[in-house]
Amino acid sequence: MDKKIFIVLKRPRHLTEYPIAFFFPSFLCFYSATCGENFNLLLLDQRISSVIAQWEKVCALGSNLPLFGVPFAVKDNIDVAGFGTTAACPAFGAEKGVAAADSTVVARLKAQGAIVLGKTNLDQFATGLVGTRSPYGAVRNPFDGDRVSGGSSSGSGVVVSQGLVPFALGTDTAGSGRVPAGFNNVVGLKPTRGALSTSGVLPACRSLDCVSIFALTLDDAEMVLGLAEGPDGQDAYSRARPEQRANDIESQQPVLAICDSPEWFGQSEHADAYEAALAKAQRLGWTLEAIDFSPLFALASLLYEGPWVAERYAAIKTFLKSTHTQETDSVVRGIIFQAERFSAVDVFQIEYRRQELASQIGRLVAKFDAILVPTTPTFPTTQELKIEPVLANSRLGTYTNFVNLMDWSALAIPANFRADGLPFGITLIGEAWKEPRLLGLGRQWLADAPRLLGATKRAYREERVPPGAVVNPEAMQLVVVGAHLSGLPLNKDLVMHEAKLVAATRTAPCYRLFALQTGSSIPKPGLKRVGDGGASIEVEVWELPLQKVGGFLTTVPSPLGIGSVELQDGRWVQGFICEPFGLANAEDITRFGGWRNYVQSLRS
Amino acid sequence: MDKKIFIVLKRPRHLTEYPIAFFFPSFLCFYSATCGENFNLLLLDQRISSVIAQWEKVCALGSNLPLFGVPFAVKDNIDVAGFGTTAACPAFGAEKGVAAADSTVVARLKAQGAIVLGKTNLDQFATGLVGTRSPYGAVRNPFDGDRVSGGSSSGSGVVVSQGLVPFALGTDTAGSGRVPAGFNNVVGLKPTRGALSTSGVLPACRSLDCVSIFALTLDDAEMVLGLAEGPDGQDAYSRARPEQRANDIESQQPVLAICDSPEWFGQSEHADAYEAALAKAQRLGWTLEAIDFSPLFALASLLYEGPWVAERYAAIKTFLKSTHTQETDSVVRGIIFQAERFSAVDVFQIEYRRQELASQIGRLVAKFDAILVPTTPTFPTTQELKIEPVLANSRLGTYTNFVNLMDWSALAIPANFRADGLPFGITLIGEAWKEPRLLGLGRQWLADAPRLLGATKRAYREERVPPGAVVNPEAMQLVVVGAHLSGLPLNKDLVMHEAKLVAATRTAPCYRLFALQTGSSIPKPGLKRVGDGGASIEVEVWELPLQKVGGFLTTVPSPLGIGSVELQDGRWVQGFICEPFGLANAEDITRFGGWRNYVQSLRS
Repeated sequence: MDKKIFIVLKRPRHLTEYPIAFFFPSFLCFYSATCGENFNLLLLDQRISSVIAQWEKVCALGSNLPLFGVPFAVKDNIDVAGFGTTAACPAFGAEKGVAAADSTVVARLKAQGAIVLGKTNLDQFATGLVGTRSPYGAVRNPFDGDRVSGGSSSGSGVVVSQGLVPFALGTDTAGSGRVPAGFNNVVGLKPTRGALSTSGVLPACRSLDCVSIFALTLDDAEMVLGLAEGPDGQDAYSRARPEQRANDIESQQPVLAICDSPEWFGQSEHADAYEAALAKAQRLGWTLEAIDFSPLFALASLLYEGPWVAERYAAIKTFLKSTHTQETDSVVRGIIFQAERFSAVDVFQIEYRRQELASQIGRLVAKFDAILVPTTPTFPTTQELKIEPVLANSRLGTYTNFVNLMDWSALAIPANFRADGLPFGITLIGEAWKEPRLLGLGRQWLADAPRLLGATKRAYREERVPPGAVVNPEAMQLVVVGAHLSGLPLNKDLVMHEAKLVAATRTAPCYRLFALQTGSSIPKPGLKRVGDGGASIEVEVWELPLQKVGGFLTTVPSPLGIGSVELQDGRWVQGFICEPFGLANAEDITRFGGWRNYVQSLRS
Repeated sequence: MDKKIFIVLKRPRHLTEYPIAFFFPSFLCFYSATCGENFNLLLLDQRISSVIAQWEKVCALGSNLPLFGVPFAVKDNIDVAGFGTTAACPAFGAEKGVAAADSTVVARLKAQGAIVLGKTNLDQFATGLVGTRSPYGAVRNPFDGDRVSGGSSSGSGVVVSQGLVPFALGTDTAGSGRVPAGFNNVVGLKPTRGALSTSGVLPACRSLDCVSIFALTLDDAEMVLGLAEGPDGQDAYSRARPEQRANDIESQQPVLAICDSPEWFGQSEHADAYEAALAKAQRLGWTLEAIDFSPLFALASLLYEGPWVAERYAAIKTFLKSTHTQETDSVVRGIIFQAERFSAVDVFQIEYRRQELASQIGRLVAKFDAILVPTTPTFPTTQELKIEPVLANSRLGTYTNFVNLMDWSALAIPANFRADGLPFGITLIGEAWKEPRLLGLGRQWLADAPRLLGATKRAYREERVPPGAVVNPEAMQLVVVGAHLSGLPLNKDLVMHEAKLVAATRTAPCYRLFALQTGSSIPKPGLKRVGDGGASIEVEVWELPLQKVGGFLTTVPSPLGIGSVELQDGRWVQGFICEPFGLANAEDITRFGGWRNYVQSLRS
């Protein structure tokens, strides 16, 4: 049976091309891990019978499903039919019993052919960022058994890092979907609140909770999000992704905010790796601008000091008030019972403060394409956690806690390795629904060079362009040559008409480029197709929604127009052309190879 | 001075064309009302000196301001520099003192030339929908002194109804911007939360509060909103209006949800007027569809029964806890002190319930252009209020309470008059930022026939089209020269894309026409703009729906394209152009004067 499950997994660029040979031992390893003696990854009621039953179901659904036979793991605060949901509290799990139905997100992934192999260990009740607060034992870090694995989605981060499954589900309220990604060298995608239904998920702070995705590659994370997201009648907080707008896409010359004085809490080990990451960002052409993070840190502090803990209490009050109190983790219990000291007035007053900070922060970061932060400021040992179980934990949320309170999205990606061989991660943060932009930036980052996936020895280089990028029948491709290029003065006319950049490329070698004498304050070139003596000119291809072409066309000034342009790859695509009278007195600037070079030559 | 203030008010369709003669007595009347013996409209510290100072300021700003010299009134929970803010609690006002600065919304209106004439009476601390809970006395209804005037923005509703000012500001948390509109035959616009800054407004429930606009006409309400709205750094809850989308505008064949079993609380007097309103809606071509309002009513009940009252408490806790407790209205006090029984957990649990209802309601009404409700179910007498001060009040919020909890916008408009001569109002409700659509529906409603404005005897008929609306062509004109001309082979491409012939005309006399050697079976010409030696070429102008331009453009073959063509009448219009390489070996056929003549010459 095992072989049948994994034999279908060879699908280019979907869920990381694992060879079958890679999966068979993984499958065995996955189950061997259930004994709890290895990494404390998995909880005890894993059932091979459930896996077989799932396999039979997806076979009935058909092998052309996008996730046909793809195995995944699920954090044990998310219901999977036939498994218990303990939230790392056996007494709670015993009271709750075996889940009768899948959570919505698990059901959607199963409907696409995916198979749940097991439930993963976590900080109890998803209260923690460390992975040590579990009666099943601390989840060990695969890079260094003396270090924490991050939490609360500790098991999900580690099973992916070890290559046991190509993806796993976690949850994220204060950073639980990002911290384990950073400590385990994997991708952690924390989508916008409500993008993934939380129906069937045990709430931590229900108004802030997100289901999150751990994966080895960005393509995999994006695919899982695309298949699982969308409104759900069972989750009142679920939301539909708004129609994509032009400014949702990645920028070719992104400007990112960074912290003006990053906090390392006296542990400088991360600082070098962070500096190396900033240097790489600049090498990629990203503009980094340091901003004052104090309002972000102030917002983060509200989360744990403020009355949101009452949401944790509200979720499990009945259980906690029962005879089981002593069966909970003492640290977790100490945190959750703080809820009792907050009144309704406290909630509203802190909510006003949250909104004030959010408004201030929104203005502060409005102009940036994203924020770049270290995923964590420290990488504690399990020993440090024993000494300061609350403080060492809360420090880990320094760069994550504020995100859900801002209604932002975030993507944790591997950055590099420290001198001691431990992974260092960065997180890209954007506004709600900016996952496509964050994934685009992540691709710029990870396509730079091959890397080792997770804690496996497998090398992989991310592709620059997402696998789903295909020709859109609802749009017209348009070759732009001059002032409409990204960053140039008329580019706004494209963006305003919701155009998206598809490619930076060149024309076929049969054009000459001219600087027109239009008398306008905005200089423009004209492209002239010639028989012989032509050159290949730098252009960009933009995709313009068909419905917007008319509006855009009315902005195109004489002597320019839209005709057809031949590209380097032989395709004829709609693009800017020029009438003869415009070219009459124009300067031939073909030697510059493109308008951008010519414009720069004027400046220098 | 009075004359100077009002002499500028004659501006077509802006702020209802009042003749000066109408304003002078109004101005006197406005001040006579301050004595408190008339309608209890105004509070006691009205200052002629402030009005004079404002007048001098706006004169310095310049008489071309859109609201130059326009007088307005402000509910006394909104700060106006130089006036006290009592919120209808003199002890509170005394403690607070005279406002040093204007609230943001007042400042913005003053910056547009408007002048605050005075502060208006209200239900104390904006807690009520009746207008009777004020130590300054109940605000009398101008149609019937024995009836309530609605609240809490009672004074603002009545000063507009009486024609004392063309508009006034209120606030709206549970319906306070709509109920007084319904009882006083005026327009009440409750914009989306955050559209109008609440900085300088004494909070009722800060997370739900809106500043609202009372006006005699829709044009006036829309103008005031447009001038005053927009994000404000001083109000963390303020928001920018999102970019307008196609579906934000009004529908020509709107479908509106109505309540399947409207609640009149045994008082059938409103029911007939409501039936008449429904009949009118159908006469206007509106489709009405009855839906189950129970989730809306359930949501409404949360507002007063739930912990949002803690927001009222939070806003004035310090004052209430001081020695002033007994100086507050006993009914208001009884309501606000309920806050003390709610815990933080209560807030979150009710918030979850709110979100569940909101999600359910969102799905229920998603397909409708708007919801149509009676503004109130009853029209109580002041006597009824004395008997049941809480119950009679809360009934008034039946069709208003749920709106702010849904983050919706609403527009209360006059509908008709009951048999007893009392006004009956309806409210149009839409999602956030749908004010333009609601105003459009309101114009369809009010343009139907002239009506009496407020309680004045002045007749007015709303215009069908808003004053700022420029006709949007939604189409692009296109000059066609060759095979796309009527009857020629490629004309089908135009017709398929729903183009219509607009004109047969000629180009400016500066073009030459060429027969291209394209090798295609369909011969085509190319138009070449020249300096000298050009001719006027026969062309047709077609009008292509903007949304179809993209599809059409993909049918245009190289070397042709769409650029700009100069017509005989001097206009530059989008039209067919040709790249130079196409013209290289082409035959000059300018002498034929046009493509059609040339083609006929080949046949003959």
